[in-house]
Amino acid sequence: MNLQLLTDLYEFSMANGYYATLPHDRQARFDVFYRRVPDNGSFVIVAGLQQVVEQVQNWHFTKENIEYLTSLNEFTPEFLDYLSKIKNHCSIKALPEGTPVFPREPIISISGPLIEAQLLETFILNIINHQSLIATKSWQINHAAQGRPIMEFGARRAQGPDAATYGARSAVIGGCTSTSNLQAASKFNIPAAGTMAHAWVESFSDELSAFQAWAKVYPDKVSLLVDTYDVLKSGVPNAIRVFKQVSAQGHQPVGIRIDSGDISQLAIKARKMLDDAGFPKAKITASDALDAHVVKSLLDEGAPIDNFGIGERLITSSSSPVLSGVYKLAEEKINDQWIPKIKVSDSREKITLPGNKQVYRIYRQDNLHQAIADVIALADEHITAPLKVVNANSAATHASQVLTNFNAKPLMQEYLGSNASPIENDLFKIQQFSMDQVAELPEATKRLVNPDRYPVYLTATLAELQEQLITKAQFTEEH
Amino acid sequence: MNLQLLTDLYEFSMANGYYATLPHDRQARFDVFYRRVPDNGSFVIVAGLQQVVEQVQNWHFTKENIEYLTSLNEFTPEFLDYLSKIKNHCSIKALPEGTPVFPREPIISISGPLIEAQLLETFILNIINHQSLIATKSWQINHAAQGRPIMEFGARRAQGPDAATYGARSAVIGGCTSTSNLQAASKFNIPAAGTMAHAWVESFSDELSAFQAWAKVYPDKVSLLVDTYDVLKSGVPNAIRVFKQVSAQGHQPVGIRIDSGDISQLAIKARKMLDDAGFPKAKITASDALDAHVVKSLLDEGAPIDNFGIGERLITSSSSPVLSGVYKLAEEKINDQWIPKIKVSDSREKITLPGNKQVYRIYRQDNLHQAIADVIALADEHITAPLKVVNANSAATHASQVLTNFNAKPLMQEYLGSNASPIENDLFKIQQFSMDQVAELPEATKRLVNPDRYPVYLTATLAELQEQLITKAQFTEEH
Repeated sequence: MNLQLLTDLYEFSMANGYYATLPHDRQARFDVFYRRVPDNGSFVIVAGLQQVVEQVQNWHFTKENIEYLTSLNEFTPEFLDYLSKIKNHCSIKALPEGTPVFPREPIISISGPLIEAQLLETFILNIINHQSLIATKSWQINHAAQGRPIMEFGARRAQGPDAATYGARSAVIGGCTSTSNLQAASKFNIPAAGTMAHAWVESFSDELSAFQAWAKVYPDKVSLLVDTYDVLKSGVPNAIRVFKQVSAQGHQPVGIRIDSGDISQLAIKARKMLDDAGFPKAKITASDALDAHVVKSLLDEGAPIDNFGIGERLITSSSSPVLSGVYKLAEEKINDQWIPKIKVSDSREKITLPGNKQVYRIYRQDNLHQAIADVIALADEHITAPLKVVNANSAATHASQVLTNFNAKPLMQEYLGSNASPIENDLFKIQQFSMDQVAELPEATKRLVNPDRYPVYLTATLAELQEQLITKAQFTEEH
Repeated sequence: MNLQLLTDLYEFSMANGYYATLPHDRQARFDVFYRRVPDNGSFVIVAGLQQVVEQVQNWHFTKENIEYLTSLNEFTPEFLDYLSKIKNHCSIKALPEGTPVFPREPIISISGPLIEAQLLETFILNIINHQSLIATKSWQINHAAQGRPIMEFGARRAQGPDAATYGARSAVIGGCTSTSNLQAASKFNIPAAGTMAHAWVESFSDELSAFQAWAKVYPDKVSLLVDTYDVLKSGVPNAIRVFKQVSAQGHQPVGIRIDSGDISQLAIKARKMLDDAGFPKAKITASDALDAHVVKSLLDEGAPIDNFGIGERLITSSSSPVLSGVYKLAEEKINDQWIPKIKVSDSREKITLPGNKQVYRIYRQDNLHQAIADVIALADEHITAPLKVVNANSAATHASQVLTNFNAKPLMQEYLGSNASPIENDLFKIQQFSMDQVAELPEATKRLVNPDRYPVYLTATLAELQEQLITKAQFTEEH
């Protein structure tokens, strides 16, 4: 799909206006960040950078794009000619995929010609908002499952083909081990998972014949869906009959899947039946409209579930289906000088952070794997102890303080531009990186309900710059 | 995107199993339907048929698809060879896009070789579930807006590029007049809409200069975003200054957009300021995190809003982001005879409807535009008065009754197969068709909160067939 037109009309209207009214060498920097975490969590898991960088690198307008834009009768011939020859000149600095990121921290920072950077807004937000949303939901569910494997099963309920496929990729970043969606499995090298549907059982004269037919075709993959008729009276007894047959032939039965009913009670009873029949290794998979809280509740009750298959509530993040990431101007280069920019608001939380920034994760000096806070700084600051900082949360009691005895690690890296690092392509390496990053955070920030707020600070220098610009904006507007 | 792999692994596992164990000429019919309406509404607006028919028509597996499937080491060489040569043999009967459809009514019915029909499940559900979800949400919001134009503004918050683009198309089916997303606008011939972002205003030395620059570039499209600094103290006064300038030059100012703050109070005050300044025709657009209930509440308060721009809560249907449409076996052709099939369940609502079916909308005999009920029938039944029917809602007090004095209109048409009708391609004709269909329904079924339940019946013949199969299924499972 031609993502350069996945752009709001007003981006083109503004770009045409900039072209007509401002110097063509005007440069700008925009930051992508969010303010609220879905599901009242404390952090978001970043995803989508790979697709963003690929799209920006190959950004151009086709002849058909230009014909369409011409047909809108809104743009000057000079601007359309400029678009027809445009190539990307923007650079991208970003958090690596899998990073846990807190509100207001820049996720991606785009700098380059104002017109180009403006035109990239819509599709960058679309990709980052969607993929980070699903990675975050996946992290929550995987956290609730305490290490039990989760298969992503949501393709049929995803919001369109891209949502299914890039959603499955994001689910793996957040911790899932496999997907049922072969589009995603083939594209991103994810293990494919699945068993059978009720239609298989119905296509044979009875359930036992259906299970036997399956065992004949897949003697080493005997994983049976036991709830077509009655889990305990029919499904599990028939599964045990077939497990005995395949065991006698030297094959190890895989297990059963329960997709409806009271999963907890059914799993407890099914487990006992399987154990009593001599199949303690046969696994139980649960897969009915599950979400993080249901998974946690099932495990809290002691339901003997070995794997989860999770669909619609993961692939749409149904309990909180929007990540409201924004794309805000941070600075502009005018007459060869970078001028910091701000968007003011009646609400202090909504005032943007000006300038070219870096995010640092702050670790205890005696334990490099225990993060205690993040600091948002201007990119050219030196972050060394003692460091004067201001709480980024304006509602906090202690507005400013001094951090001592720490190690600081910069989180943003350049991914497009003169010093670009390569993007990690191995999805399970991104997953491992994400798990390692999350492991460094305080446990209390990871609760599914009412997590503790992780401290995020601004350097005193950044906070002062912001104050100056707020004052200046008020002054400008009064005149 | 290669949608033939947007398929759950288990569809291929079952297809390979069918190929190994069942006659290759086994035919099947599957129905797509849903059980619950998003947002507790009473109906869903169908969308997605165009993309489904296009995909099914052109369905085939590429060399790369077959190589990937081979790499899974799960399928026989004979099955893979069969897949490599496969072309579509399925026919599709469906409700036209834009139809309001009630729970349990077939939306699409697919018949053809069992293996092919099984492999189509995942992507058909993905497309229909997503697009119908957004068309339904769009209908709700447009209903609340009482005819005021709604612009679809959600591209940046949609769940991926397809969700943005096909979501915009679905939003138009549900009643929206335009979209900001140029991908959707160009692909589906939708008017493109939009004004300016805060970044435009910030890119000039002050708000007035920014507005003046806009007016210079777009003298006939002076639609100004007035909330960058302060709507009433700065935005509207500056807009009025610029409106006076463009009016003096003979241009008609378009209006203002308010994107934050208390929209109702701001709109009332801004309206007065615009009227007092001599611009009663300048329109007010509202666009901050709106949904059907917010729109209704604003209009109930008398907020003078002329247009709405609606983003994330429309494009993700955030208050109810999943339509749980399913794909269930209805009949199989074995030895040249169609055998009706059923999926039983402890919950009567979840028991499927067997056989080849048609949906009829029942109108008063004296008013062909006043629908009073729907009837689900077997396709070969004659639907004439008096008609014995059974309430499809098993919780209803009056289980069965006789319908008299009515006209019945069949709703499903063939779109792929020997008697296929052409698919409507003109999106605004689909929108008009949808509005006409909805206009025929009782007003009480259209309430945003607690709508009246519209009666849906099964013919006595269909209900009896279902009962026979329930009994037979119990008998089979006891043996």
